[in-house]
Amino acid sequence: MKTDLEIAVETELQPIKEIVNQLDLLDEEWEPYGKYKAKLSLNILNRLKSKADGNLILVTSINPTPAGEGKSTVTVGLGQALHQLGKKTAVALREPSLGPVMGLKGGATGGGYSQVVPMEDINLHFTGDIHAITATNNALAALIDNHIFQGNQEQIDPRRITWKRVVDLNDRALREVVIGLGGVKQGVPREDGFNITVASEIMAILCLANGYEDLKQRLAKIVIGYRFDSTPVTVADLKVEGVLAMLLRDALKPNLIQTIEGVPAIIHGGPFANIAHGCNSLLATKMAGKLADYVVTEAGFGADLGAEKFLNIKSRIGELDPKAVVIVATTRALKMHGGVEKDQLATENIEALEKGLENLAKHIETVEKFGLPFVVALNHFTTDTEAEVRVIKEWCDNRNVSLAITTVWAEGGKGGLDLAKEVIQKVEQQQSNYQPLYQLETTIKEKIEAIATQVYGATDVKYSPLSEQQIVEFTKNGWADLPICMAKTQYSLSDQPEQLGRPTDFSITIRELRPSIGAGFIVALTGDMLTMPGLPKEPAALKMDIDRDGQISGLF
Amino acid sequence: MKTDLEIAVETELQPIKEIVNQLDLLDEEWEPYGKYKAKLSLNILNRLKSKADGNLILVTSINPTPAGEGKSTVTVGLGQALHQLGKKTAVALREPSLGPVMGLKGGATGGGYSQVVPMEDINLHFTGDIHAITATNNALAALIDNHIFQGNQEQIDPRRITWKRVVDLNDRALREVVIGLGGVKQGVPREDGFNITVASEIMAILCLANGYEDLKQRLAKIVIGYRFDSTPVTVADLKVEGVLAMLLRDALKPNLIQTIEGVPAIIHGGPFANIAHGCNSLLATKMAGKLADYVVTEAGFGADLGAEKFLNIKSRIGELDPKAVVIVATTRALKMHGGVEKDQLATENIEALEKGLENLAKHIETVEKFGLPFVVALNHFTTDTEAEVRVIKEWCDNRNVSLAITTVWAEGGKGGLDLAKEVIQKVEQQQSNYQPLYQLETTIKEKIEAIATQVYGATDVKYSPLSEQQIVEFTKNGWADLPICMAKTQYSLSDQPEQLGRPTDFSITIRELRPSIGAGFIVALTGDMLTMPGLPKEPAALKMDIDRDGQISGLF
Repeated sequence: MKTDLEIAVETELQPIKEIVNQLDLLDEEWEPYGKYKAKLSLNILNRLKSKADGNLILVTSINPTPAGEGKSTVTVGLGQALHQLGKKTAVALREPSLGPVMGLKGGATGGGYSQVVPMEDINLHFTGDIHAITATNNALAALIDNHIFQGNQEQIDPRRITWKRVVDLNDRALREVVIGLGGVKQGVPREDGFNITVASEIMAILCLANGYEDLKQRLAKIVIGYRFDSTPVTVADLKVEGVLAMLLRDALKPNLIQTIEGVPAIIHGGPFANIAHGCNSLLATKMAGKLADYVVTEAGFGADLGAEKFLNIKSRIGELDPKAVVIVATTRALKMHGGVEKDQLATENIEALEKGLENLAKHIETVEKFGLPFVVALNHFTTDTEAEVRVIKEWCDNRNVSLAITTVWAEGGKGGLDLAKEVIQKVEQQQSNYQPLYQLETTIKEKIEAIATQVYGATDVKYSPLSEQQIVEFTKNGWADLPICMAKTQYSLSDQPEQLGRPTDFSITIRELRPSIGAGFIVALTGDMLTMPGLPKEPAALKMDIDRDGQISGLF
Repeated sequence: MKTDLEIAVETELQPIKEIVNQLDLLDEEWEPYGKYKAKLSLNILNRLKSKADGNLILVTSINPTPAGEGKSTVTVGLGQALHQLGKKTAVALREPSLGPVMGLKGGATGGGYSQVVPMEDINLHFTGDIHAITATNNALAALIDNHIFQGNQEQIDPRRITWKRVVDLNDRALREVVIGLGGVKQGVPREDGFNITVASEIMAILCLANGYEDLKQRLAKIVIGYRFDSTPVTVADLKVEGVLAMLLRDALKPNLIQTIEGVPAIIHGGPFANIAHGCNSLLATKMAGKLADYVVTEAGFGADLGAEKFLNIKSRIGELDPKAVVIVATTRALKMHGGVEKDQLATENIEALEKGLENLAKHIETVEKFGLPFVVALNHFTTDTEAEVRVIKEWCDNRNVSLAITTVWAEGGKGGLDLAKEVIQKVEQQQSNYQPLYQLETTIKEKIEAIATQVYGATDVKYSPLSEQQIVEFTKNGWADLPICMAKTQYSLSDQPEQLGRPTDFSITIRELRPSIGAGFIVALTGDMLTMPGLPKEPAALKMDIDRDGQISGLF
């Protein structure tokens, strides 16, 4: 079987100008970045502001498992299928982070005949957006430490600086560090740590800003730490929002590429789906909406994290109006939720499959609570048996749930035509009554509890003493009206990663809150959240190479 | 008076395709990066390999002072002047590092009407080359720490890892750090430190590699530290040269832009001129030589550092054949070398000027030792008096030295026509007898002493006990045949920065050696060398901004 990279490299790409022409862009609205990538001007939104938005379709999934669900692949495949059916379509996706690419994943651009290309560019440095975010994040860190070194006029407490440096790599040795060593000429020693770039608040801000002015205002609101008197210190206090916004000039522009079947794909930003909201940029989604009649986008992890945040945070801030949701599942992942071990997934197991369907059931209920029409997409694997597929079909029929079986990895858009037809039918015939699950004016606890009980199915929420104290402080600081961004394990509906399927009778424990005031949300952490991954024993990087002609191998 | 940024932004740039056409490139040999930047394919060198090289002109200067010499400005101005005289010309320059831009410099792309554009792109993220080098450098660091964490098969001594992480910022708090804290799941605690990216050996390697295969071979030779048994550990031992080379795929391609007068400029790489060799990439210089009849390039700092390394390291490795040297001086800098304080430079002072000319005299002698014709360029300031200019003219006349007065900041190429005519005359009428100053087969000490006595004018070289020991070890490791890259203060011919003018009767003290085996040289450090700058009290960054339309201000 061919690898994703082999399939991608064999594809005859269209010059990016052809993709630009599909979207009827003006000459001054785009800039080429190489032959197959472009940056899009923010002026497009202004020119088309009175035009009605295209139909926004969100692709989400059951709780992810090591078996893989293929959410990005279904997203691209659905976009290609809609295109084949004559709909003017654009796909909106996140940019991959180099850390996971070099660690375990080896690539994050869909797969098979449903991927975005040129995949080797997108998986590596692409158009430099993530590098610009790294530089901006670390420039702020350098300016903070320099402020303290040069006299500390703002009276920043070096023990309470919350702004961390970042690298876009998996580098566990940087999780906890001590900096400023070496004597009085090197700065002030203090504890610090590095996050992966995609966990930076700068990334979250870039993905929620609606233009340069909004970007600057959000940057200005970032809380970088606290003074000796415990009051928060912001970027505005240091007067550096201008330079930070300047460093993001090009990174704020969405990127245009194509899918392997030549469908326009706008790919921009990629915040973590636990510590942040896990969707591509608002600008990319809005621009796709102005340029196409159907926009297919995805949100990170399962519906309990990605879709919840897409619907409670991003859609609210951006005044988006999603029309339908696709929930991706595989028999393999459902069987894992039903208790099957990873090495037994190729074996038929109806009992486990039926048990695992409970996980899907919960996500369906969640999507219904947001008032959205939905289709379940069964992403078909060659090892799926007829009996297994029949069980899923019957399960859906019994619940009056629309199901489509997709084979988009192997067949591209053709393998997603059934799904596309179901989606079109939902959009054209079923009214979306999208509304967020909670009102911003409710308290921090009420918001957390709305998510925990309605989305996760928890019975209640417990708070650590630290988080109790923080809720009081954050409310005093005027931050209580912000939406909540839950940082929870993606593997389970609960906050215990080993609890697969549909756990019941459980509590969610809030360990700590973190203010992301620039992004515009409060992060609520359940359990330990790694914001800097580590490399495995055999990193994917060890297989990567380039030959004397500049041809890359080892991405997949 | 207009700022450099204002002048740059007012310029009507030619589409990059026009610049490409000037150089007769084939369609498949270039890729656009925005409307005014391009990446050039390495295949150009292959297509033109039998074509004779253009005339290579090296621009260097007296020892730099805070008064500024305008070496980059003269380089661009000379290129523009040669172009005005009908010569097919290309300029080859280094890419600016973000650290100094945000610290003190505010920009590093020439000045006035002799700069390269778009200056705001070049000074910020440009085409991402330096970010790619940062990521590659730090990927190696993460792979090293992961190797140790995962069992340390190579028996790397964590106390003797010499590979440092980098950021392309001035961040003194990262000079000395402790990493790997937090317990057994976070790695192995050890002392570490960060350099600025342009001090990375990866940058030096990128600037000396002649293609992907050579790049990979050089990366493989990097020494990252030592085993418990004191033997050196290389990138090849970790088997990661493939992924590192892959991460540099696009960064290895030279960048094409234009000067403010539309002359092609190939700008690529920017290694430090102390810890590394301080010139743009060999690929850029070679490519410019194949595409133009005159190539004007510069080397970092004064002739004692930049030109010495250009001629002893880069030209030797790249088999370049420089035809003439331009030595830039200003009356202001000469007066500083003669003892005048910075705030008195606008006042006429013949005595100090005459004394300061001794600094120029030494650099002239050095260039003559390399067998190269030269012209002195007096970069004229409005505060220069007629008497001062006359003194310099007479000084040059008495020594039979060619002098040209340039006004390229204010007048662009027109202000460099006299210099260009002198340069053409040298090239056409005076034979270059370029040869390096030492043979590679001589010992490490003989090479160091050749540079110290012949280029700096030192009486002898002293060695610290550490460096004595290292010379024995390095020779045993088989590294003695490599050229020497001296890390010395740029401000003085000696290793004492306060010794301006032409110091005599001094020793050079070698404190430490560092192996840059991938780059292909041994660094010899005199005194303390900062490889991570700090920010000043009022960083240039504080004045930088972007408006709602994406227009940048505060670069200069």
